[in-house]
Amino acid sequence: MSKSIDHIGIAVESIDKARRFYEALGLEVTAIEEVPQEGVRVALIPAGASRIELLEATSADSPIAKFLQRRGEGLHHLCFATDDLGSDDRTLRREGAVLLREQPTRGAEGCWVQFVHPKSAAGVLIELSERPREPTGEPT
Amino acid sequence: MSKSIDHIGIAVESIDKARRFYEALGLEVTAIEEVPQEGVRVALIPAGASRIELLEATSADSPIAKFLQRRGEGLHHLCFATDDLGSDDRTLRREGAVLLREQPTRGAEGCWVQFVHPKSAAGVLIELSERPREPTGEPT
Repeated sequence: MSKSIDHIGIAVESIDKARRFYEALGLEVTAIEEVPQEGVRVALIPAGASRIELLEATSADSPIAKFLQRRGEGLHHLCFATDDLGSDDRTLRREGAVLLREQPTRGAEGCWVQFVHPKSAAGVLIELSERPREPTGEPT
Repeated sequence: MSKSIDHIGIAVESIDKARRFYEALGLEVTAIEEVPQEGVRVALIPAGASRIELLEATSADSPIAKFLQRRGEGLHHLCFATDDLGSDDRTLRREGAVLLREQPTRGAEGCWVQFVHPKSAAGVLIELSERPREPTGEPT
């Protein structure tokens, strides 16, 4: 069960403003994607083997809008790439962790994703993401 | 000016408790270090090319203790590895960013480090770290 840091999600008021800092560091926004079902726009900024994701709310009742109201801009979640999300899901449940979805669901680019409630991970919202081995693969 | 994610710092009440989540994911605490001048104990958890650092306060007036009092457990800072901290320092100042140290200072393992105030980076405390090319190297 190898794990690496897939990306770090950062809640921002404005992608246009926030990206300037990363661009000053020599990093690049390679894509900006809309995710209407999450009420969010996402700027993708590759950094070495990982990625920064700047998350801007597009609707007032989205999770990112609520996070910004409650805590302001800042680090929002940490996503690990996993090669066996089904096994992680089972292991974490067995350990008593609170997972946000009944089972892994399909996310961006066909990845399978699951989330761990911050109360089960020392205050950090954790995402786990497994890239599909085949286009129609089910998580194991 | 290449950049990668060196580590993510997470403020925790207890390393002993918090590490269990990461161990359940198959990650390992490879070292626990005391940094008396920062009033912190740090658990190092390699994850792919990056690292998670669990930060536990060892004194009540340390930055981590204050963060925990103010915000509770959670994501604390994001550290980029850089190969030219001197250049980053100059570039960020020119862009008007607020840096926390007058100039890069020596951190753990002989690295040169600088910090960017969250108000200059969309709410995120940013650390920049350059590994020394030679044991006595000055940042350029």
